[in-house]
Amino acid sequence: MGSVTFEGKVAKNLKIAYIGGGSRGWAWTLMSDLAMAEDLNGTVALYDIDYEAAKKNAVIGNRINALPDAVSEFTYVATETIGEALTGADFVIISILPGTFDEMESDVHTPEKYGIYQPIGDTTGPGGIVRALRAIPMFREIARAIREYCPDAWVINYTNPMTLCVRALYKEFPEIKAFGCCHEVFGTQWILVRLLRDRRGITAQLKDIKTNVIGVNHFTWITKATYRNMDLYDLYREHVADWKVAPVEPIPDENWVNRVHKNDNSVKFDLFDRYGVIAAAGDAHISEFCEGSWYLESPEIVMNKWRFALRTVAYRKQQLVERLERSERLASGEEVVSLARSGEEGVRQIRAILGLSDFVTNVNLPNMGQIPDLPIGAVVETNASFTADSVLPVYAGPIPKQIYNLITRIVGEQEMVLEAAFNYDLELAFQAFANDPLVRLPVDEARKLFDEMIENTKAYLTDYFK
Amino acid sequence: MGSVTFEGKVAKNLKIAYIGGGSRGWAWTLMSDLAMAEDLNGTVALYDIDYEAAKKNAVIGNRINALPDAVSEFTYVATETIGEALTGADFVIISILPGTFDEMESDVHTPEKYGIYQPIGDTTGPGGIVRALRAIPMFREIARAIREYCPDAWVINYTNPMTLCVRALYKEFPEIKAFGCCHEVFGTQWILVRLLRDRRGITAQLKDIKTNVIGVNHFTWITKATYRNMDLYDLYREHVADWKVAPVEPIPDENWVNRVHKNDNSVKFDLFDRYGVIAAAGDAHISEFCEGSWYLESPEIVMNKWRFALRTVAYRKQQLVERLERSERLASGEEVVSLARSGEEGVRQIRAILGLSDFVTNVNLPNMGQIPDLPIGAVVETNASFTADSVLPVYAGPIPKQIYNLITRIVGEQEMVLEAAFNYDLELAFQAFANDPLVRLPVDEARKLFDEMIENTKAYLTDYFK
Amino acid sequence: MGSVTFEGKVAKNLKIAYIGGGSRGWAWTLMSDLAMAEDLNGTVALYDIDYEAAKKNAVIGNRINALPDAVSEFTYVATETIGEALTGADFVIISILPGTFDEMESDVHTPEKYGIYQPIGDTTGPGGIVRALRAIPMFREIARAIREYCPDAWVINYTNPMTLCVRALYKEFPEIKAFGCCHEVFGTQWILVRLLRDRRGITAQLKDIKTNVIGVNHFTWITKATYRNMDLYDLYREHVADWKVAPVEPIPDENWVNRVHKNDNSVKFDLFDRYGVIAAAGDAHISEFCEGSWYLESPEIVMNKWRFALRTVAYRKQQLVERLERSERLASGEEVVSLARSGEEGVRQIRAILGLSDFVTNVNLPNMGQIPDLPIGAVVETNASFTADSVLPVYAGPIPKQIYNLITRIVGEQEMVLEAAFNYDLELAFQAFANDPLVRLPVDEARKLFDEMIENTKAYLTDYFK
Amino acid sequence: MGSVTFEGKVAKNLKIAYIGGGSRGWAWTLMSDLAMAEDLNGTVALYDIDYEAAKKNAVIGNRINALPDAVSEFTYVATETIGEALTGADFVIISILPGTFDEMESDVHTPEKYGIYQPIGDTTGPGGIVRALRAIPMFREIARAIREYCPDAWVINYTNPMTLCVRALYKEFPEIKAFGCCHEVFGTQWILVRLLRDRRGITAQLKDIKTNVIGVNHFTWITKATYRNMDLYDLYREHVADWKVAPVEPIPDENWVNRVHKNDNSVKFDLFDRYGVIAAAGDAHISEFCEGSWYLESPEIVMNKWRFALRTVAYRKQQLVERLERSERLASGEEVVSLARSGEEGVRQIRAILGLSDFVTNVNLPNMGQIPDLPIGAVVETNASFTADSVLPVYAGPIPKQIYNLITRIVGEQEMVLEAAFNYDLELAFQAFANDPLVRLPVDEARKLFDEMIENTKAYLTDYFK
Repeated sequence: MGSVTFEGKVAKNLKIAYIGGGSRGWAWTLMSDLAMAEDLNGTVALYDIDYEAAKKNAVIGNRINALPDAVSEFTYVATETIGEALTGADFVIISILPGTFDEMESDVHTPEKYGIYQPIGDTTGPGGIVRALRAIPMFREIARAIREYCPDAWVINYTNPMTLCVRALYKEFPEIKAFGCCHEVFGTQWILVRLLRDRRGITAQLKDIKTNVIGVNHFTWITKATYRNMDLYDLYREHVADWKVAPVEPIPDENWVNRVHKNDNSVKFDLFDRYGVIAAAGDAHISEFCEGSWYLESPEIVMNKWRFALRTVAYRKQQLVERLERSERLASGEEVVSLARSGEEGVRQIRAILGLSDFVTNVNLPNMGQIPDLPIGAVVETNASFTADSVLPVYAGPIPKQIYNLITRIVGEQEMVLEAAFNYDLELAFQAFANDPLVRLPVDEARKLFDEMIENTKAYLTDYFK
Repeated sequence: MGSVTFEGKVAKNLKIAYIGGGSRGWAWTLMSDLAMAEDLNGTVALYDIDYEAAKKNAVIGNRINALPDAVSEFTYVATETIGEALTGADFVIISILPGTFDEMESDVHTPEKYGIYQPIGDTTGPGGIVRALRAIPMFREIARAIREYCPDAWVINYTNPMTLCVRALYKEFPEIKAFGCCHEVFGTQWILVRLLRDRRGITAQLKDIKTNVIGVNHFTWITKATYRNMDLYDLYREHVADWKVAPVEPIPDENWVNRVHKNDNSVKFDLFDRYGVIAAAGDAHISEFCEGSWYLESPEIVMNKWRFALRTVAYRKQQLVERLERSERLASGEEVVSLARSGEEGVRQIRAILGLSDFVTNVNLPNMGQIPDLPIGAVVETNASFTADSVLPVYAGPIPKQIYNLITRIVGEQEMVLEAAFNYDLELAFQAFANDPLVRLPVDEARKLFDEMIENTKAYLTDYFK
Repeated sequence: MGSVTFEGKVAKNLKIAYIGGGSRGWAWTLMSDLAMAEDLNGTVALYDIDYEAAKKNAVIGNRINALPDAVSEFTYVATETIGEALTGADFVIISILPGTFDEMESDVHTPEKYGIYQPIGDTTGPGGIVRALRAIPMFREIARAIREYCPDAWVINYTNPMTLCVRALYKEFPEIKAFGCCHEVFGTQWILVRLLRDRRGITAQLKDIKTNVIGVNHFTWITKATYRNMDLYDLYREHVADWKVAPVEPIPDENWVNRVHKNDNSVKFDLFDRYGVIAAAGDAHISEFCEGSWYLESPEIVMNKWRFALRTVAYRKQQLVERLERSERLASGEEVVSLARSGEEGVRQIRAILGLSDFVTNVNLPNMGQIPDLPIGAVVETNASFTADSVLPVYAGPIPKQIYNLITRIVGEQEMVLEAAFNYDLELAFQAFANDPLVRLPVDEARKLFDEMIENTKAYLTDYFK
Repeated sequence: MGSVTFEGKVAKNLKIAYIGGGSRGWAWTLMSDLAMAEDLNGTVALYDIDYEAAKKNAVIGNRINALPDAVSEFTYVATETIGEALTGADFVIISILPGTFDEMESDVHTPEKYGIYQPIGDTTGPGGIVRALRAIPMFREIARAIREYCPDAWVINYTNPMTLCVRALYKEFPEIKAFGCCHEVFGTQWILVRLLRDRRGITAQLKDIKTNVIGVNHFTWITKATYRNMDLYDLYREHVADWKVAPVEPIPDENWVNRVHKNDNSVKFDLFDRYGVIAAAGDAHISEFCEGSWYLESPEIVMNKWRFALRTVAYRKQQLVERLERSERLASGEEVVSLARSGEEGVRQIRAILGLSDFVTNVNLPNMGQIPDLPIGAVVETNASFTADSVLPVYAGPIPKQIYNLITRIVGEQEMVLEAAFNYDLELAFQAFANDPLVRLPVDEARKLFDEMIENTKAYLTDYFK
């Protein structure tokens, strides 16, 4: 590894490289979490294609580090090249936007002209596929830089489409020590905490809910859930049975914006009713992996029947404006971050990999047999054991028969997109696209949509047209 | 094995047990093929739940054996019990109808009320699933009888749903020496023969077309096709390109009945256009494995756009009446069969297993790794090597990425139906049913349809209601 | 599970069944560990074919529980039948002697007449094989009892031959929740602690040494060892290089008895010198898996060159006499146990399975792919993740090329012995025996030895002669 | 493929490149077989590092082609570069000597100083390992040339060590269409023909003996042998039982030379007695894979007990002298070859790959699952199906439990040697060497032997010392 040293149980001289370090949001969360980490100290090198943004974040990071509540010492620097950021790094964090919100606008909204609605549009479906075509060449480039500058560093990816970004890192540099990290499963674990409280009168903490996680990112499932010696499947089953006869009443004054970041889990409950297996991600994500006719028939059905919202890119753009303003305030010191642990696991993972404390959590890794009936090499999400210089998957078992075809369908699609992107083969990409569960179009219509989406985003697809 | 002996290259005292031996059609074909087999002699024991039909076929068989052109000696006997038929058998042929045409009428036509059209309805889709629920318990019973009376006999199944019938035999009696036999792939090989003639001026024989077969029965694909050193994929690609700009003109006076047993292969050409892989079964079968919106949207689209017909069960019933009449004529000697080799491979397979001449052909066997990315144990169709007392799959390779999710979807469905039938679990069967590519219904509608189909066929599902 | 309930973080009404509960040694260790477990309470049912021994241990257990330092409440009862012990059990502990020390005397010492020396003789080699032939039928019987009385209980085995005992449990009752537990790997982790201290001046705790464990029980290997970010392979390599030029001087007055339970790790260091991989069990065990000419050529070479001792069964018998006397003193209260945590992980595993605190440790489980190049189903030792109602292997990776053939040789032997024992097939057992690395005999000599060993132990092999 | 064309069932313009085309022996056999092939015509390009030898063979080849009995038209040319030979080739034949007989002398005879006797010394054991270290870099170079000049050509290797030569081709150029061809299995099939005649009075032809072949080259086994419906295992078992009580009497006047190329199959019979499985190669080869103490303890035991001979390299050198003299006579026309089919399958394989007639035979291919319990990618020998542009393994099944560890031991050794050669890592090569079943030496002795053998052959190992 890189430059880290230890004094007792405290790590010094840690170097973290942050690719996409100009980000407004994720970067600040990490800064706050690092400031609260009493056993970690070192440097964070921020690299971004927008160097000015990275420089501003360096200022913000150093301000956060200087807060009275900060218990660690971290220095933030912006670097002009990726090589500077990576050299000597112990850890690399990747959190980038593949393209801009303009490309994302095409990803999400162009398909609406064809009756295809995507609540997020960054993972699967037409939007996720085209986003992957942009992202994969970027991740190949990052992988090559890591091989050159810090081949032993641990790499944590937060970028979507998670599966294909991690897959691209490994395909480009098979010895890379990378994993992908996503908090969506926690939401379903929280449902179990609430059900324990509401239906059993038991106060449990999130960490006491033990789950076996299986699937691909954002289409993850929990095949076993236990609290102490209690099988939580019984609890969930009971709840879904009640929900089926009396779904939660819609809150009358609820408007669109309020629904953007919440949902009633109706999609998950409906999937449990269909298959008897607990899906474990937000409904907005899960619905995108299912037949379009099930949950995403129209914005009205999404809102009124399934009770969540289609997140527009206009809304994201508005959010970005607000975050840019906040960035100014944070950099100038006008606004002060109040330190609080985020619930994200990044710092805990770093600590475990440094050998300071082990834990097991769900992450995205190449399949080495942890899901024995999926192809070896495909990136899957299961529990993994984190310990010193080691992240290894825990055996998750085969996919339940009932959802096997739902998951292999997506794994197959992702493997096609990967190959398409590595070979710059838009024809193969289209074959994946036309068979996506959301693309319920005649082939000619599908072709028109695909061509339009490619055209809209071609500034980031130049390699495909060489 | 059983009772067979050899004189030079001629087998004597062969005993073949025919389960479903009262059939009008298949049985006569076999009788004719056996009569033409100069190196095989012995007894065929016909067992059928309709003993009278078996007796009539014994009369017919013995008449055929007595024809002047017959070169072998076979004696046909009807048996009242399955045990009598199986005792001492070298080979067992299974060709039964799981239920009657009344049940099949429900399988095929009840879904039409919900806008679901099935050209065949005996393999997959709602009809195939419900048929499997009837067939699997029957095949378990047959497997147990084989274990008891002739555990070393070779078992050839012709019954649909092929995959699940063979799967049930192996699950019930893992040491069984069984395989499933289907002629659908030949049709696609004939297309290649015709294209060679029409586009290259080359006269080839069917046996000179070498293909690598992969998939599940009736949803088989050819991943490599070669004539001498010529890659026939180029030929097929060229043809599909032409077809795309100028599809075959519909023959004006063509009526429904004429289309029942033929088609223009438009579905296969369209699938090649989508995926670049050659599908290898009749369009009527293949279309049932695809999204309902692709080929089976309505009877009009089937007939006019895809240019094949939905085969009604009324038509089958009418055919049966005709075959029953023919049965009378054959038994009485009023009509005489003129012997001709059928093109079916049953006799050739028997000859190879007796060690008289090897060959390689495509059959249905449990996956032992011949398709490395499908689950071990699932029944798949690939080439296999036939030799003395041995039928072993030839490595077929992984499924092409483009169609991986199409095939795993069906494999997953079939594994669910198998488990449902072995556990008499109609809830699990419904989960498979509701997710079938043809069942594009809201869950509640799907449930209604399923319940109706089960109700219609419950006389053959009594084990599920114990 | 069984009867356990929780009050906050404290488990009540836990029921542990102890098969072999009359044992003098292991049972007392467990009693002491349970007495120190502040969060566990319940009943321990002691079952033993020697009912009097179980009764005496119940008295001892209850005395231990009544000690002032005891922080938990456990009641010990002896049961006359295995069914009584198992009914309602949450956990089953199995620690039995397959036969008596007379049989073990034959296992260990009969081969000496043929120049075959075994330091332990309970795991592999001629002694381990014959012991397995006795043990496997016993474990099948235990598995059947567990299936009948407490199919959901967790089963912890401590009996040797570990691999084959666990394998037999799973083969007899595939749904069993069993694992095998052994402390041998800790010894090698302690070596790393000492080397860190002696060569780097770092004081580390055992739990800070992170290892990836791979292999079969008593022939386990550490493929990666890390302290913080330090690769301990470098440290070990350095040490072995020094050892090679200057092995530890033998302690002059050292006599045989002193060497019984310790060694200088020369075998492990020599294996590292050969293969560059760290073996991780006591030299006495490891040497038994290697070619007889390497470490076990003669008692003199064992003692003087490899510097450990051949443990005689006479010594074990003498120890047993002493333990029987101690048993009397403990039961009468004449001697009082002073409570101390043993370092064994049994209680910690129970706690984790109850959902009270997770951890990862190495145990013996069927291979589900955690070692991808060993056969699925073979019992292997790797790390596993322990959490509520769940013990799942962590991916360990393929076996290093250098030792692949050493390990597959043993796995192959064990699979043969398993099959031999399940089929009562002494011929197959002999084929395994004759090919064991310690049995360097002409076939006829090997046969004589095998027959003699079988004859000596036939009182426990009656099923093989029916 | 290359340049071949067809006129009806006759191939024209076939181009075969022969690497090692100056060989005296194999090359002439091929020439003779080609001359007898009525349906093949074309050019054979002979490339050899000894260009003069290739030129002489071109003369000989053209003389053979001009014989009155020759039914095909083949032109032989010698090329100065490998590129000329390969350009446009449809087939590539590789039959080279890795080094000279001087190196082979060291391979075979240096170990004798340490009591290690090798009847052949070109496949496994110390000789085979050192030969592989020379051969693998040569095969990498050939693979690269094939990738450059004729990537679609089919490649047939005859060179030993067969397994590692084929393995190296695939590792260097994974898309290569190569297989390895060896006639050793036929010998065991002939034994079965003879036993059928002697013990059953049945006259069978070799092709009527159907066998399932499994293992690695020269250590192949037959797990099922059938003639018609007769299980030949019963026949073999009966014979071995008789042999055990009354081994064949040694022929009194038999001298060493007479035994070089024949044997009494005592090793195979003894292995059957040990394991109940039929080994299928010459005893000279098989014995080299077993513990040195079993069959190769001393030259006297080899000759008198196991009744075959250690083939000296002096003998090979003498043979070479004779073949060189014959080469002169053939080139000058002084001696005329009388055409006869050799029994080798090369021409038959070429014909099948050209699509002219299918067959199934045993060859060496990477494991794709045909032996499910050996590592994927390791080169194994099983049956394979030969058809147009296709050689695919037939499923052979798992290795019988009794011999699993014998075979995995060798596979593990070969994988180590492969990696050692690709990384020029003599340390890893030594780890394989020291653990070979024939190398029963203390490590220090093993090291001395290894160093001496490397030193003796270093002229061909220069890459290892860069």
